[in-house]
Amino acid sequence: MIIVLRSGSGDAEVEAVCRRITEMGYAPHVIRGEFKTVVAAVGEERGRPDLRLLEAMETVESVMPVQQPFKLASREVRSEPSAVQVNGIAVGGPAVVVMAGPCSVESAPQMREVAEAVKEAGARILRGGAYKPRTSPYAFQGLKEQGLQYLAEARKRTGLPVVTEVLETESAELVARYADVLQVGARNVQNFSLLRRVGEMGKPVLLKRGMATSLQEFLLSAEYILATGNPSVILCERGIRTFETTTRFTLDLNAVPVLKKLSHLPVVVDPSHGTGHWDLVAPMAKAAVACGADGLIIEVHPRPEEALSDGPQSLKPARFAQLMRELGPVALAVGRSL
Amino acid sequence: MIIVLRSGSGDAEVEAVCRRITEMGYAPHVIRGEFKTVVAAVGEERGRPDLRLLEAMETVESVMPVQQPFKLASREVRSEPSAVQVNGIAVGGPAVVVMAGPCSVESAPQMREVAEAVKEAGARILRGGAYKPRTSPYAFQGLKEQGLQYLAEARKRTGLPVVTEVLETESAELVARYADVLQVGARNVQNFSLLRRVGEMGKPVLLKRGMATSLQEFLLSAEYILATGNPSVILCERGIRTFETTTRFTLDLNAVPVLKKLSHLPVVVDPSHGTGHWDLVAPMAKAAVACGADGLIIEVHPRPEEALSDGPQSLKPARFAQLMRELGPVALAVGRSL
Amino acid sequence: MIIVLRSGSGDAEVEAVCRRITEMGYAPHVIRGEFKTVVAAVGEERGRPDLRLLEAMETVESVMPVQQPFKLASREVRSEPSAVQVNGIAVGGPAVVVMAGPCSVESAPQMREVAEAVKEAGARILRGGAYKPRTSPYAFQGLKEQGLQYLAEARKRTGLPVVTEVLETESAELVARYADVLQVGARNVQNFSLLRRVGEMGKPVLLKRGMATSLQEFLLSAEYILATGNPSVILCERGIRTFETTTRFTLDLNAVPVLKKLSHLPVVVDPSHGTGHWDLVAPMAKAAVACGADGLIIEVHPRPEEALSDGPQSLKPARFAQLMRELGPVALAVGRSL
Amino acid sequence: MIIVLRSGSGDAEVEAVCRRITEMGYAPHVIRGEFKTVVAAVGEERGRPDLRLLEAMETVESVMPVQQPFKLASREVRSEPSAVQVNGIAVGGPAVVVMAGPCSVESAPQMREVAEAVKEAGARILRGGAYKPRTSPYAFQGLKEQGLQYLAEARKRTGLPVVTEVLETESAELVARYADVLQVGARNVQNFSLLRRVGEMGKPVLLKRGMATSLQEFLLSAEYILATGNPSVILCERGIRTFETTTRFTLDLNAVPVLKKLSHLPVVVDPSHGTGHWDLVAPMAKAAVACGADGLIIEVHPRPEEALSDGPQSLKPARFAQLMRELGPVALAVGRSL
Repeated sequence: MIIVLRSGSGDAEVEAVCRRITEMGYAPHVIRGEFKTVVAAVGEERGRPDLRLLEAMETVESVMPVQQPFKLASREVRSEPSAVQVNGIAVGGPAVVVMAGPCSVESAPQMREVAEAVKEAGARILRGGAYKPRTSPYAFQGLKEQGLQYLAEARKRTGLPVVTEVLETESAELVARYADVLQVGARNVQNFSLLRRVGEMGKPVLLKRGMATSLQEFLLSAEYILATGNPSVILCERGIRTFETTTRFTLDLNAVPVLKKLSHLPVVVDPSHGTGHWDLVAPMAKAAVACGADGLIIEVHPRPEEALSDGPQSLKPARFAQLMRELGPVALAVGRSL
Repeated sequence: MIIVLRSGSGDAEVEAVCRRITEMGYAPHVIRGEFKTVVAAVGEERGRPDLRLLEAMETVESVMPVQQPFKLASREVRSEPSAVQVNGIAVGGPAVVVMAGPCSVESAPQMREVAEAVKEAGARILRGGAYKPRTSPYAFQGLKEQGLQYLAEARKRTGLPVVTEVLETESAELVARYADVLQVGARNVQNFSLLRRVGEMGKPVLLKRGMATSLQEFLLSAEYILATGNPSVILCERGIRTFETTTRFTLDLNAVPVLKKLSHLPVVVDPSHGTGHWDLVAPMAKAAVACGADGLIIEVHPRPEEALSDGPQSLKPARFAQLMRELGPVALAVGRSL
Repeated sequence: MIIVLRSGSGDAEVEAVCRRITEMGYAPHVIRGEFKTVVAAVGEERGRPDLRLLEAMETVESVMPVQQPFKLASREVRSEPSAVQVNGIAVGGPAVVVMAGPCSVESAPQMREVAEAVKEAGARILRGGAYKPRTSPYAFQGLKEQGLQYLAEARKRTGLPVVTEVLETESAELVARYADVLQVGARNVQNFSLLRRVGEMGKPVLLKRGMATSLQEFLLSAEYILATGNPSVILCERGIRTFETTTRFTLDLNAVPVLKKLSHLPVVVDPSHGTGHWDLVAPMAKAAVACGADGLIIEVHPRPEEALSDGPQSLKPARFAQLMRELGPVALAVGRSL
Repeated sequence: MIIVLRSGSGDAEVEAVCRRITEMGYAPHVIRGEFKTVVAAVGEERGRPDLRLLEAMETVESVMPVQQPFKLASREVRSEPSAVQVNGIAVGGPAVVVMAGPCSVESAPQMREVAEAVKEAGARILRGGAYKPRTSPYAFQGLKEQGLQYLAEARKRTGLPVVTEVLETESAELVARYADVLQVGARNVQNFSLLRRVGEMGKPVLLKRGMATSLQEFLLSAEYILATGNPSVILCERGIRTFETTTRFTLDLNAVPVLKKLSHLPVVVDPSHGTGHWDLVAPMAKAAVACGADGLIIEVHPRPEEALSDGPQSLKPARFAQLMRELGPVALAVGRSL
């Protein structure tokens, strides 16, 4: 940490800051500039008192971190990219893995229809929400366990592993009995109890970035899961909230190369939520693959205008199949397969 | 809802949209403009199929809501402001209610010292966190039940009712046994299971706005609590995330008059989190009262530079006492008392 | 426009709003819903009084636009994409056009070196700033006319047409004498006098989106140029300002397909400013091409660590050449050439 | 500046960075931590090569500024607040100065009516736009010189000095002949040629913050004006662009105490643009005064629903008069007068 002192700080004040740094278990190094004095505090920071606390001292103008606060998620701990295995499918390996399916599980025939269509088109993992986080209490909240059963049936029929959201600690075990990958949604990215519980299930976790989560915070949320001893975390960029209103969110594709630089974890992109409109999904799916995403998660519904949630951003099966055909060459162009 | 059709939509397409609107249980009204045709769909929307789904139709360019999606929180249902009673203290009444205390409960003596100091200075409710949501898994996570006990002791000694955060559904009942007001934190504003569980406890709830929560979404989160039959919700503005980095968050005081226009619920402001720096707390506390806030929630710590969390934004007791002296005239100037 | 009246508005109030709409030259249509009454005002809006003014009436809750406010830039006026010709190079045609060069023109040898390198690598247009908009008055402000001369020499030597920024109305003519494409920078996107003056020069204009410019405002700024009779506008996405700080800006690639849906104008992307780091330029350049950009504008400098501006985001010539080799297959994968 | 090296940098790399720092004219100090090595570069930075350039070196992970980049605007140069004199009225003195008038000057009678009304209510300076920056080329662009004449007539009649916007360098002198305070609008906050030209006029300048301008950039824009030798700069917070859409902008009142901490310049607030709705102006005007603003600038129009611009956010004269009566006690409560 670099501790910047207020202009005009005298020797006694510098001394006091250094003393406090020493008490906190770090070694202080003073550098006197023309206008400002700064103190560098040296030592491992994780699991030790937080030096940002020094900002509470009147002498201190600001405290600037040098180390990244996450560890298990970082390239320091593991310099090579890690792949997460999902029933023999490697997310983070040479192939770009496409996960597809409806926003909400609505019925057994709907799941069957979609599962077969997306499998036929080349998707490797089936998505579908049984527990739905909805902004309004008056909206459809998901079929819950029945939805999980429909997912399981669709898996049995198609062989596609299933990713579905865990909405609350209470149902984590139940969901884990049915699902192959446990999703933590954007609104729960800093629901720390949920992160821990989901991590403890021991299954791969798909962690979505929140709509106002910085990449550093995102990796700290991943760290919560990794700290349970579960190494299988897949990061998912799904759009952040900005001033722009023609799209539902602003898909932050910069995040893909940044996350891959800071972390060894695989990164997938959700162009459905990241745009909010079905006709923007295909171009942004291609962009995601082009900038290095390890996978995509895409909403597909046979009759989007009757979907119980997120219809406007869902692709019809024929459009999804066309997108899959178009994605192949893009993946090849960046040295991947589909 | 207003459904805007794409330019060049013909009669058959208008017809198809109207038919779908009718199927969904609404009455369609077509208005043909020079460039665009729009269809107004008339009917109560809450608890009925979501007309925004029509955006999934290729003919439809956009769907624009006319009604507010929340009901129990709205002025339509209750045109007068409602006050929430906390052990005989009315939040939303003529007096501005100040809640104060440390970010984290750290020890019995700390709580005792702070509780007496803030009571002496004029605070009416004691705050303190026993369960702490922390960005990093390596940071102090709170004293949990022991912290609740220290809060209860401080209440017994001072008579101040206690507000503290509920972090997860599992501990909601335990917290409710100790606390007078249950806080839902910014990171949990769309943790819908938690909103429901906290609502069911039947005690007043202090609901913090999330860092990227629109005011409409915020009121929908309040609606989740109100829908459990618990009418005692206090809204809390605590800063939103923007591009500005000199402050930890951007305190959105516009939210105070907007929320009071849209809703009957009382609104309090947290200038500690909303700025992140102790020396900005006093001016923003005054601003909050001047624009109509019903209360404030302020972090106070006897030794901020040793606090286990949020030291940089905590006031020392003497500064808090001075702020309270300065706030009185501001409250009077806008027709309130302190 | 849709005018939403406040709940409880009576017949007299609806009448008053309709009267005002008629006075403003539009035809009112009243739709009474269960909770709200709305009035649709029908008629061409461009060049007529702005109906949003009705929000000033106490009866009116909000006014929602239906038409897009831009016309010449829209697909309504021209349904096919338009290409901008730059000395025989079509921006918006089948080939993706890469523009490259240093942030600032620094010397004749620097320009010569860069121009030859980027031409060799396959760039079709040379970029370089002679007039530099700098956040600080103490920073290098550009070589001005001398810089333009160096650009002209580099063009003569390589045959590459030149794009350079016009910073102020006074120097527009001078710049237009030297440049083939006139750039309007992000900070001037709503400098309306400059937009008009640059448009009047009759040369192609590269218009950069501002860091907080909505896509609708962006197209209205293009409209200022088009309204001078100059049809040759190239739109450029270069990153918007958000809360994320690991990158200099958040490159909004959603903007590419959205702009191409709303407008017939060609769209290019600036991954150098859109990320701020040289090692993120290549992945984001590929992503831009994959989602449909008609071109790229990329900063290249032989010795970035000595550049007078934007060194951290500049590619060295060898890295640029490698990127060009990698971009070709991506362009092919989406049916374009390079 | 603090230069953070990439993990794993060896002695040769540290050496290379230090050499480059020395070449740039600064003194390097190396601090080796457990995980990271940082180099502090000591020396005056303003007017010298920008150390952030070192980010272009592959060895360098990031560069963190310690000094503020502005000087004349800073408290280092002048520790006491400075007041700007406008025809004998001190902006930044003990009294809160209210500037009021229509968004656009529309006619002589309109200006006369408003000027008399706002003077009567207690405003000290008259505002009104003759040159209007409009998002759409089809909107009313201002009466230009005729508007300036109407302003001058209104000044003559009421004795109120006049503040009006300078939109372009060409008309700066003309505007300066008529106006007492020259306004630079939000869209021109980084139009550096305009900042210089307006500064050279030698009259007080009201500089509005842009909608995505950080406070540091804002003070650097002020520095452009101060660097012309003109010390009379008034800073104006007028709302920033965020994700929230119930208000036109998010008024960032945190900016008031932050600017007053970083700079000696006076700070005023524009609650009309900062909210966009007339019924939010009064509460936010009071909040601005409560947190320390030195003045307010408020839009007043006799018939807002007929205004040629910004009607929805304009107060009618009677409401303005009521606000002025309510503001007095708030000013007194924070030790100011009105």
